[in-house]
Amino acid sequence: MSSAEKAMVIFQPSGRRGQVERGVSIIEASRRLGVDIEALCGEKKVCGKCKVRIEQGAFQKFGITSSLEHASPWQEEEAKFVSAGEREQGFRLGCAAKVLGDLLVFVPEESRAGKQVVSKAARDIPIERNPAVKLYTVTCLPPTFEEPTGDFERMCRELTKEYDLNDLSIDWHALRKLPGAIRKGKWTITAAVWNDREIINVWPGTVSDYYGLAVDIGTTTVAAYLCNMRTMQVLDTVSMMNPQCKYGEDVMARITYHQMNPGGLERMSNDLVEGLNSLIAQACANTRPPLVKAKDENGKAIKDADGQPVLVEAPQEGVEYLRLGPADIVDITFGCNTAMHHIFLKLDPEPVGLAPFPPVIHHSLDIKARDLGLNINPGAYAFIMPNEAGFVGADNVCVLVAEEPHRAEEMALIIDIGTNGELVLGNKRKLISSSCATGPALEGAQLSCGMRAAPGAIERIKIDPDTHEVDYKVIGREAWRSFSEPKEMQTKGICGSGILDVLAELYSSGVVSKSGRFAKEQKSKRFRSMADNPRQKEFVIAWAEDTSIGKDVVITQKDIRQIQLAKGALYTGCKLMMRRMGVAKLDKVKIAGAFGTHVDKAKALTMGLFPDCDLERVMSVGNAAGDGARVVLLNKAKRDEANWISRNVEYIELTVEKDFEQQFMESMQLPHMTDQFPHLEGLVRPEILHQK
Amino acid sequence: MSSAEKAMVIFQPSGRRGQVERGVSIIEASRRLGVDIEALCGEKKVCGKCKVRIEQGAFQKFGITSSLEHASPWQEEEAKFVSAGEREQGFRLGCAAKVLGDLLVFVPEESRAGKQVVSKAARDIPIERNPAVKLYTVTCLPPTFEEPTGDFERMCRELTKEYDLNDLSIDWHALRKLPGAIRKGKWTITAAVWNDREIINVWPGTVSDYYGLAVDIGTTTVAAYLCNMRTMQVLDTVSMMNPQCKYGEDVMARITYHQMNPGGLERMSNDLVEGLNSLIAQACANTRPPLVKAKDENGKAIKDADGQPVLVEAPQEGVEYLRLGPADIVDITFGCNTAMHHIFLKLDPEPVGLAPFPPVIHHSLDIKARDLGLNINPGAYAFIMPNEAGFVGADNVCVLVAEEPHRAEEMALIIDIGTNGELVLGNKRKLISSSCATGPALEGAQLSCGMRAAPGAIERIKIDPDTHEVDYKVIGREAWRSFSEPKEMQTKGICGSGILDVLAELYSSGVVSKSGRFAKEQKSKRFRSMADNPRQKEFVIAWAEDTSIGKDVVITQKDIRQIQLAKGALYTGCKLMMRRMGVAKLDKVKIAGAFGTHVDKAKALTMGLFPDCDLERVMSVGNAAGDGARVVLLNKAKRDEANWISRNVEYIELTVEKDFEQQFMESMQLPHMTDQFPHLEGLVRPEILHQK
Repeated sequence: MSSAEKAMVIFQPSGRRGQVERGVSIIEASRRLGVDIEALCGEKKVCGKCKVRIEQGAFQKFGITSSLEHASPWQEEEAKFVSAGEREQGFRLGCAAKVLGDLLVFVPEESRAGKQVVSKAARDIPIERNPAVKLYTVTCLPPTFEEPTGDFERMCRELTKEYDLNDLSIDWHALRKLPGAIRKGKWTITAAVWNDREIINVWPGTVSDYYGLAVDIGTTTVAAYLCNMRTMQVLDTVSMMNPQCKYGEDVMARITYHQMNPGGLERMSNDLVEGLNSLIAQACANTRPPLVKAKDENGKAIKDADGQPVLVEAPQEGVEYLRLGPADIVDITFGCNTAMHHIFLKLDPEPVGLAPFPPVIHHSLDIKARDLGLNINPGAYAFIMPNEAGFVGADNVCVLVAEEPHRAEEMALIIDIGTNGELVLGNKRKLISSSCATGPALEGAQLSCGMRAAPGAIERIKIDPDTHEVDYKVIGREAWRSFSEPKEMQTKGICGSGILDVLAELYSSGVVSKSGRFAKEQKSKRFRSMADNPRQKEFVIAWAEDTSIGKDVVITQKDIRQIQLAKGALYTGCKLMMRRMGVAKLDKVKIAGAFGTHVDKAKALTMGLFPDCDLERVMSVGNAAGDGARVVLLNKAKRDEANWISRNVEYIELTVEKDFEQQFMESMQLPHMTDQFPHLEGLVRPEILHQK
Repeated sequence: MSSAEKAMVIFQPSGRRGQVERGVSIIEASRRLGVDIEALCGEKKVCGKCKVRIEQGAFQKFGITSSLEHASPWQEEEAKFVSAGEREQGFRLGCAAKVLGDLLVFVPEESRAGKQVVSKAARDIPIERNPAVKLYTVTCLPPTFEEPTGDFERMCRELTKEYDLNDLSIDWHALRKLPGAIRKGKWTITAAVWNDREIINVWPGTVSDYYGLAVDIGTTTVAAYLCNMRTMQVLDTVSMMNPQCKYGEDVMARITYHQMNPGGLERMSNDLVEGLNSLIAQACANTRPPLVKAKDENGKAIKDADGQPVLVEAPQEGVEYLRLGPADIVDITFGCNTAMHHIFLKLDPEPVGLAPFPPVIHHSLDIKARDLGLNINPGAYAFIMPNEAGFVGADNVCVLVAEEPHRAEEMALIIDIGTNGELVLGNKRKLISSSCATGPALEGAQLSCGMRAAPGAIERIKIDPDTHEVDYKVIGREAWRSFSEPKEMQTKGICGSGILDVLAELYSSGVVSKSGRFAKEQKSKRFRSMADNPRQKEFVIAWAEDTSIGKDVVITQKDIRQIQLAKGALYTGCKLMMRRMGVAKLDKVKIAGAFGTHVDKAKALTMGLFPDCDLERVMSVGNAAGDGARVVLLNKAKRDEANWISRNVEYIELTVEKDFEQQFMESMQLPHMTDQFPHLEGLVRPEILHQK
């Protein structure tokens, strides 16, 4: 393709730039150039989320001229989202406007993807303080002609005398700081010692506070907890979309991307590391005063040579700022599933995706963070949690380190629902684990109106069994639909935890039958044929007038099937594990992950997401994977425990059980429990509960 | 300075380029752009060593036009070295031609500096084989559903079973190779294990030969020994000038360069590492067939698009080529003096240069070679030998590891003469060390006609005591001057080992007196006043007609003073150490370094370079520092011994002894031994020996 058929597109504020074929949409161009623009409706021009501004003029700095004429003509659909005033400023929908010539495109904050990720807050769990990195301060005698011993040995002598630390080695980068630091501190120096073995950093004089980061790398979301390693306080929680999402939604898609694209593994890893460094920078920036635009005496914003506003720090009175930099972080721990683990570390993930799914390594790893390209203290190690098996990874070990089922008497089932479901069953006598292919449905993904748990997402629903009329509420608004004006709802879709609510209501109101099919007899005009496929049916949850996406929010027969497959996989997994273990009833069910935090436990039981358990013994444990990463950051004994767990939890491959298919088919029914469910009395109307 | 006053100069084949002020010489431009051109005579247009070719034409690739007119006009002196034919091709002397406009300058092989460094050959010393890096081959069972253990644990299980290796960790880079290698080898794999602790590399299948490099970083010369780690055979010795020479001749000059230039430390270190990588590449290239110009069927050289000849491998029949690459080198060891150690590792060398001269660290270091920027196997460690003291470094520890005075009964004095003299005295009961500022005179540097030990350097001399006529021989020619035609000598200067010969002959023939001053009465016209300073005297060793530098090779009063200072410092050091130790007579004297290899032992004793010892008990031990680096490469127990040595040899600061000055003054006399030297009878004429 000649360059005449290509055009230069530059995105701001990221500054990403590159040649794209003329004729592709701005959204497509953004994807190719690695710019994340929100595209909720899948480029159907119906959500208005991908609004961008085309800058006009000759941009000498970039060597291009950008104008509205360099984009395809205005389309009527855009008017729904772009006001006349905005249109004049150059705003377009990224999915409607095609690239015809060079363009400088500004992506406003609200159109940037990833902004709505809900923070995974840290829970308050008891942790015994025993970090792998500890600080020690010593004062040495200065060298003399009689005693000209070198700096390192001089310091070590005192570390041995005062703290009984022996045979210490020192990281090269710490060693380089040593002569300056020991003299600046007038022969008093503080050393950060890793595992009582290696000095990884030195500071002049006395230092007592120091910092670490615990990171949970999910397939979709990455969360990091900035901790004061002395007080064990969580200073900040920061999170982001996993930047690898652009290479594939789930684990298998990313493994496939690696197989199909030379250099794909490195690309995915590098993108993640780049994202992690932004996250680290963000956590550090949060410890500094906010930046505001500088103003002159007339109150006018001061601009720099490029016409950009000059920013100055605006400290709030009474607030003490730590002003941390990346070099202040001296330890970092990572939990992630096996595929994310391998991709992060550039280990070939292909075997993990092929039966019998062996990982490259189970054992935890201590890798210099600088080797991984992580911008923290140059002497720091990254601790990577161990893997249990190909499909039960280090993230699950994190959950177990945090929840400690191996120390308990009670028979507990721990469910971690991410893009894959990970299951652990047992107690202090024995633990078994397995994974089940729930798919992303329970996270709200790949459904016709699914979305992340963000403002505008339907999270609760009620369907009148008599009229099949719907009432619902969305995240970000207290009032239910029945107490609101339609335009106040600004509904966008259905989130993962809302999905189960929807299905439970569809079933208990009789809209769908036990088999998951829409009932033949329907009482409302909400039930209808799909516009583009009249043989397929759908049920309208929210009318277009309630939404900000300009179309009805619906649930289709295919959506219901997706959810059934997810809950069927999960239930079958639990059931077969209980059979292996010879367990008839669970003492406790713990649900980890964002799904667990939002789900209605009773509805989960009703729908047969997992086997029978007393409702009050079902509990959400939040982001237990993140908690586990934090536990090992603050307690090194737990690192050994993690390695013990990874090799002593027995992984069971359930799909090879001979009645797996049969069990799976049965588990897809609504609800699953066909015989006994006295605990469900009062939760579901009797005629529904006992229908055949 | 405006760019109009500057010109672009590009050097080939290195490709280095940059702007320089118009008017500077090509030699000066080369220095600024980091290109090493031989400049033996110090830009006096008398040695002809800096011959370069100015390329003519418009070079689109570089965006410049280069022509002879862009250099200052031809000078008559150049004709002595540049033939008419060469002149037509564009040859000039780099010191004569000044840059007036853009130039593309080609530096021919023979003008590149550093080419004449004499290889420091490896000695045949007994080494017990026990390398830090060992190979182990195992065959694993492939994973199954019943036993899906990961690759790393699968391999380790066999390593434990077969070789009792436990608790192994693995380098990240080796881990990345593991899944591919273990499958390629059909579950047979060879692991390189460092110190029975860490797997640093893996290969598919069975591998038995592997390679390591022992490196001796001198202030002036760097030598590296490529070893087969299985057979312990030295495959190749490669050497180069220390690229830091351009920042200063000696240790103190480089420390000063660091103090005066921000970023100077990094620059010196990076230059050295770049040089080391070339040396590694060269050692590897030597294991491949030589490259020759490809020719077409008519015997004409084939050229590539740039007009450069295409090169092809020309393997010799019957020769087996190892075809090693940098990744085949899995271990590397370094010995160097303390300042070189610090500059190499970017450790602030300033304290080493300030009393009481403490180093940053004594202990040996294991640093990932990749961290240092060394291009060998990415999992390999560099082992850096420990330092004794600020002025007795890791290179001296190397010598002791190779010579083992701490295991001997006899009282030995070990002298390592580099730019600094390092002295060790003792036996298995006690060892003391010291250093003395010999300066570079004994290496031939900083003398008016001093040079490196290269072809054309005077290495032996005889002066007739009656006529003061001179006979001499040069390196690279068997016949003495008296048996040659003048033009056959091609003399260039005097090398380090020749210097002592010259001084001994000057003294024993009566040209200079015991005090080192030229005798009042001279018998030859070789004694004369210096042309540019008539009050200063000089003695002609070789007339201009014997030389290739077009001028007389002389020795001046100042030169003699330099040598006296060097030998005085050395002798004083030895004497004071013996006094400290309470030793009257030495059992043995070992001279390490290139100086030791070339020096005439009798003349060294005559001149009083070191205290009295039986002549047959004085021995040269060659490049013992390099030997020591090779010992620790092949025997890890010697690494522990090196650390023991570094902390158990007592360093003595001699300059603080109260009669140091007095001793030093006395030691400068020729020869030093004023009382007893029966062993010198027959070596020196009696009237000289006993003169007062």
